[in-house]
Amino acid sequence: MIRIYADHAATTPLCDAAWQAMMPFLREEFGNPSSLHSWARKSRKAVAEARQTIAECIGAQADEIFFTSGGTESDNWALKTLGRKHIVTSAFEHHAVLNSCLAIEAEGGQVDRVSVRKGGFVNPGEVASATRRSDAGLVSIMLANNELGTIQDVQGISRRINRDKWLMHTDAVQAVGHIPVDVESLGVDLLSASGHKFNGPKGVGFLYVRKAVQGRPEFRPYLNGGQQESGMRAGTENVAAIVGMAAALRWNCEHLDENVNHLDALKSQFIEDVRSFCPTAHLNVEEGQLPGFVSIAFPGQSAEGVLHILDLRGVAVSSGAACDSKNTQVSHVLSAIKLPKKYASSTLRITFGVENTEDEVEHMVQALVKTVSCR
Amino acid sequence: MIRIYADHAATTPLCDAAWQAMMPFLREEFGNPSSLHSWARKSRKAVAEARQTIAECIGAQADEIFFTSGGTESDNWALKTLGRKHIVTSAFEHHAVLNSCLAIEAEGGQVDRVSVRKGGFVNPGEVASATRRSDAGLVSIMLANNELGTIQDVQGISRRINRDKWLMHTDAVQAVGHIPVDVESLGVDLLSASGHKFNGPKGVGFLYVRKAVQGRPEFRPYLNGGQQESGMRAGTENVAAIVGMAAALRWNCEHLDENVNHLDALKSQFIEDVRSFCPTAHLNVEEGQLPGFVSIAFPGQSAEGVLHILDLRGVAVSSGAACDSKNTQVSHVLSAIKLPKKYASSTLRITFGVENTEDEVEHMVQALVKTVSCR
Repeated sequence: MIRIYADHAATTPLCDAAWQAMMPFLREEFGNPSSLHSWARKSRKAVAEARQTIAECIGAQADEIFFTSGGTESDNWALKTLGRKHIVTSAFEHHAVLNSCLAIEAEGGQVDRVSVRKGGFVNPGEVASATRRSDAGLVSIMLANNELGTIQDVQGISRRINRDKWLMHTDAVQAVGHIPVDVESLGVDLLSASGHKFNGPKGVGFLYVRKAVQGRPEFRPYLNGGQQESGMRAGTENVAAIVGMAAALRWNCEHLDENVNHLDALKSQFIEDVRSFCPTAHLNVEEGQLPGFVSIAFPGQSAEGVLHILDLRGVAVSSGAACDSKNTQVSHVLSAIKLPKKYASSTLRITFGVENTEDEVEHMVQALVKTVSCR
Repeated sequence: MIRIYADHAATTPLCDAAWQAMMPFLREEFGNPSSLHSWARKSRKAVAEARQTIAECIGAQADEIFFTSGGTESDNWALKTLGRKHIVTSAFEHHAVLNSCLAIEAEGGQVDRVSVRKGGFVNPGEVASATRRSDAGLVSIMLANNELGTIQDVQGISRRINRDKWLMHTDAVQAVGHIPVDVESLGVDLLSASGHKFNGPKGVGFLYVRKAVQGRPEFRPYLNGGQQESGMRAGTENVAAIVGMAAALRWNCEHLDENVNHLDALKSQFIEDVRSFCPTAHLNVEEGQLPGFVSIAFPGQSAEGVLHILDLRGVAVSSGAACDSKNTQVSHVLSAIKLPKKYASSTLRITFGVENTEDEVEHMVQALVKTVSCR
């Protein structure tokens, strides 16, 4: 049976560049970078080079990159240290941000959540207004939403807030490697990313922390222990994964234009073909999405039912965010954009990846034709 | 040049069983376990099986095992949730425990540190006495020390404390996979472990949490976000690493007796050969160590100097814990056992692994003869 994977927002396959880079450090070069002997030297050098690579890909300095176990840890670290007093965030952030905010509130911190406009966008002016209710704090707005793919105007937010008093964090887990990301032009102080969302391995991510922020007393390790990561993140470095993540990001950044073109073409083909057989299909987002990202509703269908039948036909898509799969209610994201229930309950998230082909899209649409009854 | 690695307490090479188990999940079977389609199924099943394997290896139930990014995260999680009020620990714990305790004190928690006896052992009675100064709290005593290899009487401690009021945590990072570890006979409520210390990959570990403890309100996630790990540890599962860690632990548990015999033989050979050329060499610990673990002083020598020359001769050992390598003072562990300065400053940690051979030990001793001047 043909198997087609179109759920790249959940996770991505490892690219060859990442695999090749990782392999030596999984086997022969296993030294602990903190050791003093020569077994450590190659590992230590590889981690330093990976830090430099990642910094270059996002317009940062190497000493502004801290390796973590993934996007979730990066978000927890940023919010629970620098956002303990007051956070302004949105109603449709990833759960790593949402639930960190709940934990911060439980400890007595203040959290303001701005609403999301219908199309899937946060209003920068609304964020800026919320920051004016308090002296100082942390703004945390995602760069791209994980269910809708909508790219937020983080630059517009950072320009409107008082950067002397407020720090700007962005959960860029869905965006890094998929669109150009530059910490300077975005104007962010902190940025979270995750390796497995851009063809790197699982279990690794990073937090960008602007140099000027690193001197603040509130910026503390979230994992206490050894002196790794300039004393700011303890734990033996996950060398192979760090190296793999850096190779994957470089590969994506070097091929960004052609990847975007390819994904745009697949998405256009898909939407055109779906519309021709199903005029009632509804695109939840019209514009401003990540490349190859589709959020589409088939009114009258159960999204989960469609997903399962597509799965039996060899096609993998999502009905919502992967990390929310145990929760089969309408997701907090679709609720936040006030999507009518007939759309929300029938929404599929289809996220193409660079390895997908036109033939696969054709096959997917054929599978949809057999699965979905259009009314 | 011959290269001999004898620094297994810092990190270990991946065993073949771990590598074979990991490979499919690094490449073809890359699905996110939280997805609803068939790509997720193999990953999800593999994580469940790994949980079962690890539980069996330490006498626990599968739902008492929570996967983390390593020993450091496990320690931080255990201490900073269940130990926020009062912790009784020792003066020679790993920095993941020591520095978590400092963070807890900074937040207003109470920490009592019992001293360590000369041979490298905590006195269970002293720990029990310390717990009587307060109503309830968490005891955290490591199962085996990372610089001395001394195995602590955790069972004796857990028997002497009031288990209705006090929880018992052990950082078993150095012990798991190297000696029999059974949570029931140890009488622990929480246990931290790290994959790369027993021939698994870096960047993964686990925290054992006794079922009865999981119902306590203080037991909360340390990383907030998605509903992974029964809602207690967010973040996409590091599938390949989890599977590799489980395979490595199973391999070590299945070969424990022969491994211990092999390591004991190497250690005896090494000590005998060193003594024959250097009668002034001083064993810092006489008994009760992990298999293949040597802490030895060469009075009059600089440990770091010896380490570097040995390294040039192809032999990797340690002068202290790897995670403390940036700190070239006498380590907190050697200070805690009040080792005289002439020994402390000349101490090497030599930790053999299963892949070491008699020939390698012979070669190591020859390298030592050329490096160390015995007075």
